[in-house]
Amino acid sequence: MKLYDYTHAPNPRKVRVYLAEKGIQVPLQQVDLTKGEQRSPWFLTINPVGGLPVLELDDGTIIPESLAIIEYFEELYPNPPLMGTDPVSRAKIRAYERRCEQGVLNQAATIFQHTSPFFAGRVDQTPKVAEIARNNLTARLVWLNDELKDREWVAGDSISVADVTLLIGIGWAKVAKYDLDPAWTNLARWYEKMKARPSAKA
Amino acid sequence: MKLYDYTHAPNPRKVRVYLAEKGIQVPLQQVDLTKGEQRSPWFLTINPVGGLPVLELDDGTIIPESLAIIEYFEELYPNPPLMGTDPVSRAKIRAYERRCEQGVLNQAATIFQHTSPFFAGRVDQTPKVAEIARNNLTARLVWLNDELKDREWVAGDSISVADVTLLIGIGWAKVAKYDLDPAWTNLARWYEKMKARPSAKA
Repeated sequence: MKLYDYTHAPNPRKVRVYLAEKGIQVPLQQVDLTKGEQRSPWFLTINPVGGLPVLELDDGTIIPESLAIIEYFEELYPNPPLMGTDPVSRAKIRAYERRCEQGVLNQAATIFQHTSPFFAGRVDQTPKVAEIARNNLTARLVWLNDELKDREWVAGDSISVADVTLLIGIGWAKVAKYDLDPAWTNLARWYEKMKARPSAKA
Repeated sequence: MKLYDYTHAPNPRKVRVYLAEKGIQVPLQQVDLTKGEQRSPWFLTINPVGGLPVLELDDGTIIPESLAIIEYFEELYPNPPLMGTDPVSRAKIRAYERRCEQGVLNQAATIFQHTSPFFAGRVDQTPKVAEIARNNLTARLVWLNDELKDREWVAGDSISVADVTLLIGIGWAKVAKYDLDPAWTNLARWYEKMKARPSAKA
């Protein structure tokens, strides 16, 4: 088994942080996005839509998409649970995870793509697109700050994949030069705690 | 149990088509998006981020997000399986479903939001945003047409939630006045077959 990875990209990092929280070790193989290696012929035979991460099993089975990989590991190794312990807690965690992915990580990725010199010439960079993503991101973080008012974790009483996705999302927003509003004290408290966990270095 | 629904919106339709394929009946309560009812105080107590669909259980538990709702029903009623039968088949179906959601349904939704008179005044409509989404959508449909070259269903040997999401995505692309390329004959064959299923009327 190995995980096609790129150290500095957010979606592979989501899987790495998840694996670190679970205590699962998987060999990593770097695919250098700065060199466009995800669009090279050898990698397109592994993932024809060109994204990372991708998990390759020992029999050659390919599992792309970060959340599909996480759900796969969670089925194989249910403990410690990061996706709930029954249908209702799993449903709630999946819902919060999506709200963190779509409302935070995907918006941060859009801001980065449309403003970073790294993507100049690769993407039709459009200031309006970045501005819309910025507004979406702010609205979602306002809501999350309120959600964290009287609880410790995003989706319930213990850490879950929703926390992992939010950690990656906020980290990527910072890379995209988006600053957290100092008024979001609940979110700041949660973020400092997440960053201090050993898994955050994965 | 009831499902907060709006007949003409794509994400609630995804859950309705899924439920029809499973043979599960759930009472529906309409939330009229054309009247902005999803932003009314009573609905924001149910879903503070304002989207549909939302499932409400008999004990008052709220499960938002279409895919979280689908995974919940799949755990309770595994047959007929629409999300695989083992960790690997589930992983593949989840991966294809995401590619259909992010690459087709979400792109179609973006085109609609940025071009439809319905969203004029509600969204900062930007032609460039619609154009980028159109290009993303075309690239993903080219890939899907190729994937369907020598198999009947999107994610394997039998119908799955990936097919349901693609059906809704293409249907919504048509609402957004996006025409399928007549050269995509595999996709057209698949689409006609999906549309002919009784579930497509849900």
